[in-house]
Parts: sequence; C-alpha cells; structure tokens
Amino acid sequence: MEIFEVNILGCGSAKPTLRHMPTSQIVNIRGKYYMIDCGEGAQTQMQRMRLPMARIGHIFISHNHGDHVFGLPGLISTMALLGRTAELHIHGPQQLQEYLDTILKIYCEGMTFQVIFHPIDTRVHNVIYTDRSVKVWSIPLQHRIPCSGFLFRETPSLPHIKREMIEAFNIPFSQINNIKAGAAWTTEDGTLIPNYRLVTPAAKPRSYAYCSDTAFQPKLSEVLQDVTLLYHEATYPDEFQKRAQETMHSTASQAATIAKESHVGNLCIGHFSARVNDEKALLAEATTIFPQTCLAFEGLNIKI
Amino acid sequence: MEIFEVNILGCGSAKPTLRHMPTSQIVNIRGKYYMIDCGEGAQTQMQRMRLPMARIGHIFISHNHGDHVFGLPGLISTMALLGRTAELHIHGPQQLQEYLDTILKIYCEGMTFQVIFHPIDTRVHNVIYTDRSVKVWSIPLQHRIPCSGFLFRETPSLPHIKREMIEAFNIPFSQINNIKAGAAWTTEDGTLIPNYRLVTPAAKPRSYAYCSDTAFQPKLSEVLQDVTLLYHEATYPDEFQKRAQETMHSTASQAATIAKESHVGNLCIGHFSARVNDEKALLAEATTIFPQTCLAFEGLNIKI
Repeated sequence: MEIFEVNILGCGSAKPTLRHMPTSQIVNIRGKYYMIDCGEGAQTQMQRMRLPMARIGHIFISHNHGDHVFGLPGLISTMALLGRTAELHIHGPQQLQEYLDTILKIYCEGMTFQVIFHPIDTRVHNVIYTDRSVKVWSIPLQHRIPCSGFLFRETPSLPHIKREMIEAFNIPFSQINNIKAGAAWTTEDGTLIPNYRLVTPAAKPRSYAYCSDTAFQPKLSEVLQDVTLLYHEATYPDEFQKRAQETMHSTASQAATIAKESHVGNLCIGHFSARVNDEKALLAEATTIFPQTCLAFEGLNIKI
Repeated sequence: MEIFEVNILGCGSAKPTLRHMPTSQIVNIRGKYYMIDCGEGAQTQMQRMRLPMARIGHIFISHNHGDHVFGLPGLISTMALLGRTAELHIHGPQQLQEYLDTILKIYCEGMTFQVIFHPIDTRVHNVIYTDRSVKVWSIPLQHRIPCSGFLFRETPSLPHIKREMIEAFNIPFSQINNIKAGAAWTTEDGTLIPNYRLVTPAAKPRSYAYCSDTAFQPKLSEVLQDVTLLYHEATYPDEFQKRAQETMHSTASQAATIAKESHVGNLCIGHFSARVNDEKALLAEATTIFPQTCLAFEGLNIKI
C-alpha cells in the first residue's frame, strides 16, 4: 500500500512546557510532504525526525495564533539557506497574510524561491488543494479567531490487474488501462469475462482529518464520516469543561464523541494544555467513549 | 561575592543543527536577568535551564537577523500568558522595530504589559542602560547589517567595614557610610585611624562582553581591555577564513587574538557554523593563541 502517514512534531498548546512542543505535523502521502501548522521549533523537530524539509511543497495553517505559526519565519529562512528554488505554498486564513508579508519583506530579501499565499475561507467546507495523490478540504472550526481544519482524502487508486488472467486470456497491453477503468474483456471465442475476474479491487481510499483548535462542534461529524484517522484537539480533561467552552477548546470526551459520531477508524488526541500533567487521564476519558483512541506525542508516526 | 553569571541558551548560527540552538543568552547580575539575543526556541531553553522568565526586564538584541530574533514573538506571548504586568524593555538596532511592531499588533492585542523599544546607535560605544547593579554599553560590530555587541560592567561595590575595628574604636553607626566612602576616623584621644585600617577593599568590578556577529575587528580590543569574560563569535575554523571574511564572521583564531590583545580574563567562543562537526578543532586553534578559552554549549553556566 502506498505511504500515507502523519508525523507529530508538536502537540502542546499555547503555554510552552518541557513535555510538549507547540503544534505542527507533517503528512506524508506517497512521498510528498504536507505541513500542518508550524509552531516555534517545528524545523528542529523535523530534523530530529529526519523529515526532509525540501519535500514540503504546501503548508496548511489552521489559524493565526502564535503557537501555530511562530515556526514559519525560521522554517522559511532555513529553506532559503539550503538554496531552495521550488515555490512554497502557504494556505491559511486571510489573517495570516500581514505577518507573512512582514517576515518575507524583512528577513527574506533576495531569497531564491517564492512563497505564495492562498487564503482559505474558514466558513466553508471546500476543496482547497488538489494534486495527483490527494485532495485537501477545509473544515470550518469554531475558535476565537477564524480557524480551519483540514481533511486529506487520498485519490482513489485504480484496481490492480491480475497478471495471470491477462496471460490466460492473452489480453494486449493496450487494453490494460480500459480494464483498470472497469471494462470487461471478450475472448477470441466470444466469451465475455466480467471485469471483477480480471482485477483485484483497489484499496479503499484513506483519509486524515485534522481538527484543531476548536470548541466542541457536534455537526463536525457530518464532514468527518468514515475518516480513517482523525486528529482532534483535546486541550482539557472533562473537569475543565467550562474553561474549554470559554476558550473555545475541546475536552477529551468531546473529541471522542466527535470520533464516535463520525465512525472514524482511529482517533488521535493532542493540543494538550500546560495544566495537564498526565495525559493518561485524557486517554481514559476518551477511550470510555471511543476505544480506538491514542495520545499524540512528539515523534509519533502514524501509518494510516 | 554577588552573583554575576552567563547562561548559554543557544550558541549555533543561522543554519539549524541538532547540536546547537540559535543564539540566546541570559546574564544574571545580582538576581536581575538580562537576555541577549533571542533565537527560535530560547523560551524552551529557559525552561530547561530553570531560568525565570518573569525576572527578565531588559532584552538586548545585537542585530536583526532571524537566528537572533525569531524567539521574541513566542517569548513575549508566553510572558503575556503568564500574566506579566511589568514593562519589558527591548534594546536593539532601529531595524528591529518594524518586526516588533507587527508582532505586537497582530499577536499581542490586549496584553497586560507594555513592550518598550529602545533603538541603539550601532556605530558608537555608549552607555545604553544603567541600573543599580550594572551599566550596559553598546559595542560597534562589523556585520552585514547594523550590529552591536554589549558590555556589562558591574557597578563597583563599596568596601566592607571591618566589624572588629568599628567595635574597637567605638565608631557610631552614623559614620559607617562615610567610612565606606573613604573617610578616616579620629578617636576620642585624637588619634587618626586611616581608612585602609577600617575597611577591606571591595572586589574589583567584573565585566562581561558579548561580541556576535562580527567580522574580525582588531580595534575591538580598545573597548574590551581587561574585561573579565569575553564571549566572541567563532563561526568558522581557520580553514574557512575566506568564507568568514565574506560573510562578516570570525574564525576561532581571530576571536582568540581579540581576547589576547584585550587581556581579558577568559574567552568563551560560540556561534558555531553548521559546517563545523567538531568544535574541538576550534578550541585547539583558539587556545594556541589564548589558552583561557572555553567552548560554549547549550546549558553552560559561567560564573564570572
């Protein structure tokens, strides 16, 4: 199966701790690297995890809070020092642009590559990026400032040809693509071989959804149905539910409820508050509602 | 002796490595903390070294390159999260102001404390800050953009009164300050007791000089004479002398030459290039010229 994995560079929240770095992730789909959020220190975390900076073509920023963006200037500067020439695309709420423009103007004069900003409409669930391997959708989140989650949907693969059938029926090479696309085959003696006998079906397309930062938002599950892996913030344990509501964050139980209602394959929770000394309590609360839950940590690699 | 120490948070240069963090230091003089430069990750390093963020009143920024300033937004944001109310003073070249203003405008709305910027004239050797314990001087450095080093000169202490002499001559409490200031004492029978018999001299005032980033600049030693501890950048080993010259950095031998000509007490070298895999070579080159040299490293604490 082709690679589709998530690497956690940081899963802390705004107040820094020695246990967690601020938010950043690298999604690797078939060898292309997509960054989600870029907290301070993200570039160092990439080095630690041996993730190649040059392979990042697109960065998706959920919202313009410092713990999600303060790693961008360093990352961009380092890319310039490494002699990058490929364009770097940054997708994020419009609010991000002034910061980006200022950084680029002051620190990136004469840089050998272009940074292209693509504003996201955080109010709608839209395709914001497409390539051969993936479509990325925005997910409207509810936070103190405009904020978007991201849904990565793998492009469906074509079915695999059964080599032995090709040989048995003497099917010419020119017909392979038709058969992958669903065609049947008629043999020389006129027998119709249905398509399902010629191919093994493609693996079901996988998907990854990133929802941080957000208040508990039950209708999120409409767009998250059957997602293979969901990363949902769980800033607080249930006892801080009032604080979660005030700051527009979620509790572990709320994250698990979203996962359950969405029938996702697995849930990974993160964006842990500095108040949380032991994330096991968060895990216990979440697994009561949705057992297929894991805790994020720096260095975690999840194969989807 | 009252505390005067330097803590190295980072001593790498622009290109990040897993061996070093970008430049930042904390000078602690009699319990007041002064930050010098603030590369990405400085706040995390402070946590690691258990240095109290709340005690920083003044930050001195040498120049407006990313590896010396990209930690500022995170640091200021965290101070705000911690409920700081005390003013924060930032001293640096004028070029720093636009970045600071942008960061404060976008990310620090409604912050509970004020950030006050004090531009430094990087062309002159001037007192830029004074308090009860220290005077800080700018040191004109030669780099690709305006750049200033910093010289911390401890305020001279008063001599210590010899308690046994006070008792022997029955000197009243009201005279203590006069005697500390240099006065002699005349006993009841008219004998003059010279001041040196009444006091032990104060320790010689200590000093710390920070010179980074800079091209080799022999006349630096005019302002560095007899400094107790000198931190001088040594970005490259001698074999890269041409590159040092082009990028306006120094080699280890050049740093040691400055130390020798300035008759400093000790030299600490840092700002190591990512090209340097083994700093022992730098140390060997420096100690050939100036034996009292040490290598900086993250976590190093030097008592002056």
